[in-house]
Amino acid sequence: MLGAMQDWNMVVSHLIDHAAREHGAREHVTRWADGTETRTDWAGIRRDALKMTQALRRLGIGKGDRIATLAMNHSRHLVSWYGAVGVGGVLHTVNPRLFDDQLDYIVNHAEDRVLLYDVAFQPIVDRMRSQWKTVEHYICYDPPAGSDVLGFEDWIGAEDGDTQWTQVAERDPCMLCYTSGTTGNPKGVLYEHRSTVLHAWTGLQPMAFDFDTQSVMLPVVPMFHAASWGLPWAGAMTGVKFVYSAVNEPKVLCDLMDREGVTHSAGVPTVWLAMFQHVDAEKRELPKLKQAVIGGSAAPRFMIERLMKAGIRVAHAWGMTETSPIGTVGAPTHDWDAKTFEQQVDMVQMQGRPTFGVELRTVSLDDMETELPRDGKSSGALQIRGPWIIKRYFKAEEDAARPDGWFDTGDVGIIHPDGTLQLTDRTKDVIKSGGEWISSVELENAAVGHPAVAEAAAVGMPHPRWDERPVLFVVRKAGADCCAQDIIDHLTPQVAKWWLPDAVEFVDDIPHTATGKISKKDLRARFADYRLEADA
Amino acid sequence: MLGAMQDWNMVVSHLIDHAAREHGAREHVTRWADGTETRTDWAGIRRDALKMTQALRRLGIGKGDRIATLAMNHSRHLVSWYGAVGVGGVLHTVNPRLFDDQLDYIVNHAEDRVLLYDVAFQPIVDRMRSQWKTVEHYICYDPPAGSDVLGFEDWIGAEDGDTQWTQVAERDPCMLCYTSGTTGNPKGVLYEHRSTVLHAWTGLQPMAFDFDTQSVMLPVVPMFHAASWGLPWAGAMTGVKFVYSAVNEPKVLCDLMDREGVTHSAGVPTVWLAMFQHVDAEKRELPKLKQAVIGGSAAPRFMIERLMKAGIRVAHAWGMTETSPIGTVGAPTHDWDAKTFEQQVDMVQMQGRPTFGVELRTVSLDDMETELPRDGKSSGALQIRGPWIIKRYFKAEEDAARPDGWFDTGDVGIIHPDGTLQLTDRTKDVIKSGGEWISSVELENAAVGHPAVAEAAAVGMPHPRWDERPVLFVVRKAGADCCAQDIIDHLTPQVAKWWLPDAVEFVDDIPHTATGKISKKDLRARFADYRLEADA
Repeated sequence: MLGAMQDWNMVVSHLIDHAAREHGAREHVTRWADGTETRTDWAGIRRDALKMTQALRRLGIGKGDRIATLAMNHSRHLVSWYGAVGVGGVLHTVNPRLFDDQLDYIVNHAEDRVLLYDVAFQPIVDRMRSQWKTVEHYICYDPPAGSDVLGFEDWIGAEDGDTQWTQVAERDPCMLCYTSGTTGNPKGVLYEHRSTVLHAWTGLQPMAFDFDTQSVMLPVVPMFHAASWGLPWAGAMTGVKFVYSAVNEPKVLCDLMDREGVTHSAGVPTVWLAMFQHVDAEKRELPKLKQAVIGGSAAPRFMIERLMKAGIRVAHAWGMTETSPIGTVGAPTHDWDAKTFEQQVDMVQMQGRPTFGVELRTVSLDDMETELPRDGKSSGALQIRGPWIIKRYFKAEEDAARPDGWFDTGDVGIIHPDGTLQLTDRTKDVIKSGGEWISSVELENAAVGHPAVAEAAAVGMPHPRWDERPVLFVVRKAGADCCAQDIIDHLTPQVAKWWLPDAVEFVDDIPHTATGKISKKDLRARFADYRLEADA
Repeated sequence: MLGAMQDWNMVVSHLIDHAAREHGAREHVTRWADGTETRTDWAGIRRDALKMTQALRRLGIGKGDRIATLAMNHSRHLVSWYGAVGVGGVLHTVNPRLFDDQLDYIVNHAEDRVLLYDVAFQPIVDRMRSQWKTVEHYICYDPPAGSDVLGFEDWIGAEDGDTQWTQVAERDPCMLCYTSGTTGNPKGVLYEHRSTVLHAWTGLQPMAFDFDTQSVMLPVVPMFHAASWGLPWAGAMTGVKFVYSAVNEPKVLCDLMDREGVTHSAGVPTVWLAMFQHVDAEKRELPKLKQAVIGGSAAPRFMIERLMKAGIRVAHAWGMTETSPIGTVGAPTHDWDAKTFEQQVDMVQMQGRPTFGVELRTVSLDDMETELPRDGKSSGALQIRGPWIIKRYFKAEEDAARPDGWFDTGDVGIIHPDGTLQLTDRTKDVIKSGGEWISSVELENAAVGHPAVAEAAAVGMPHPRWDERPVLFVVRKAGADCCAQDIIDHLTPQVAKWWLPDAVEFVDDIPHTATGKISKKDLRARFADYRLEADA
């Protein structure tokens, strides 16, 4: 050996060890569903996680075993993250909003041996229990007084915490998250210790979560969504104070943000919408956040404008369960200060730029081997690769990524010359008409701008001459009225003439997935017999 | 295989690839020694580095070969960092301020095959050339017009850059830096690709360099000092604009900072002293920096106060060549805003807290197996471990770190309950009197507060009864006068009575090392025959 730097196994337990050692007294606040509050700190999280590893070992649970949670955001859930991973296990965060057939599938597919749950989801447990063949132990985070179910605090309270983390290798798995599965069965993404730690490091930087020891984070993104965007791991690196709410009522969130000095938050657009409605109704100010990370789906322009005008930096992010999930994040570009407010909003409306580690490219929708230029115009299938991007789904027979690492995201986007990503559609929703592509998302965004439209979904329907033509399904706002021609007239100045839908169909509702997105799969199924005439 | 995330080789070439792809047009400015300026960008740095790999291969230089630089800060030097590493080589940054015997030793010990140098160091090259047996090729970064030495631009200009980086493994070495060697021969620290990339990731976070795409960094720390604190690597991760000056004249630095919109700088305390003198003499304002990282040696209180009052965040950092070098960085603690200005300065005067990845501890100076409490009082030998901390010096027969990773830093310090490090001395300089320890640094800091004292060094001298007793060597300011009793009177209210020096000796000068630190080794050698009487 010529010389060397130290060997260092890149494992998740380093995160909680660091947080407890260097930021041990930094607080965690939990506001429970019943309105009570509890407080702990990073040292407490670690101590309880160590107790949990002892309790798990006592049940015979160890390396590689899957430990499921069915829970909202709270400190006991966080303890379970570090406890499950600390025993060498694989944490499986189950989305309680999934449909029963999905819950059945993923728990059995994951072969979860333990399930920890909120009492709010007791009905799900009672309903699913007989189908969940592999689950040997059920533990409730917050059992009601007098209940005979095993409570989390009692379970770990029997241990002394005087133990060590189970030794694992850095490429060992630590967490399993299933995609919501808009097509076929949900698929499991198996995160590794190394990918998780690198992703957390990435999250600290100013262009991403911008975390230091002064940060106070209230994550509205649930801990069961795409690893909660990695926040529970990244926060440990700098001893972030976490404020958790087990309910997502805007009043509760705003009160917590004001009282606990919250500086950072993260959530999907609907969270902010609800917050706006609350502060408007109550005539109160928006909380004094420093930064709001918005991801999950595209943030509307008025939302970005309003947050920015309130002095909140908006980091519009893009990622997916398969990408851990940080892919791109919107951060001020180097010429930001020279831009007008309108230009800044234009910038923030796009999905930002890749952090170091990940690479993006777009390829032709017609020929996936043809890479498209980063010209701000060419729209194509978005691909990604890097150290925290999926290679193979859990128990899959084949890799999900190509041998050269490129993983097809299913998104359609444009890459600008400065690297900024602009998403335009999903690959399976983009409409192919006469060999050209029409963005269903752009049609929908234009349609919902009509004052009578509550929701709209554009779907490509088979057409004898053009292959596919767009049909727009519209839900009218309660009490509002409009006809198909009104919608067409509204769209005409906004999109190319050949993009205009061949038909506008009014419906009472549009189906949604478990994560609240429009389910075009179900919409297509509902209209399986729908036919367009040639040049209708 | 159950499932997997992607394989990803953690190598330095990813840094420059990312910078060129995502921040290609972001500028690099160089102000050369002759007053001229050149500009390039991250895409240009990469293109030139690729050309350099071709030029190196043409010379038969490849994987594992050492490529030395003897140069100030400029963009061609940066190109060489990525070019040398990109060919699979080991970049060896030689400190031109070393003494001839050290220059002789390290170039031969490193077995450098190529040496790239600034014309300002032509005298060194001419003087040392016959002793540097292994150097086959000399290339000058800035040859004067009409010179017949091989110039860097001509050398790489013959290549087209159409090539690939040489493939390496992440634990392969990429860089070699020698310690300045206050005892014995200089020792080489061999950085690896993996340690370098992890260290760069660490540098981005708000508590460290706080880098995003808006950052404009003028590093005053030379590229030949402890890997320039990792700045050339970290800057690539977010496309920092670099402003380099090949000279360290305060006027040049201030002009560049003002004109180029510099937001970040980093350097040793003397840099800021010189800057203060310049702005005071010229009655100009300090540059409008966002952050100044100060490391290398302890920053005096008045310096911290002045920078903070000018609105500049001071990140007081501690590290060493053996630690890549980030060990601790001073950043606002979570209760920062509740502190008074004086309390904040107290905080910043200490050396900050460890970033995620490294661990610190202190052990008893009397018994290295006894770990000391983090109580803000117990002073002991500082030890460190982590992924970018040395395991074994270049060509050493034994590890420098213990089997459990702890590396003895040679520093003496106190760890506070919140993890803040307060350095008090060097292990070999701390004075042992009657079984108790006296800090030489605290005696010196107290002594230089006397208006007639230009410089002071406290050394433990053999004492028949107390083992060692402090003797203070003092250089008077030009034209100033004072006697030994004046100094003792000045120290008396500041230190414990038993810390007071047994003697104060006035000298014309105090010897320094090549990096400008007081050389107590040379001072002790000069006074080898010095004797204290029992109870003098």
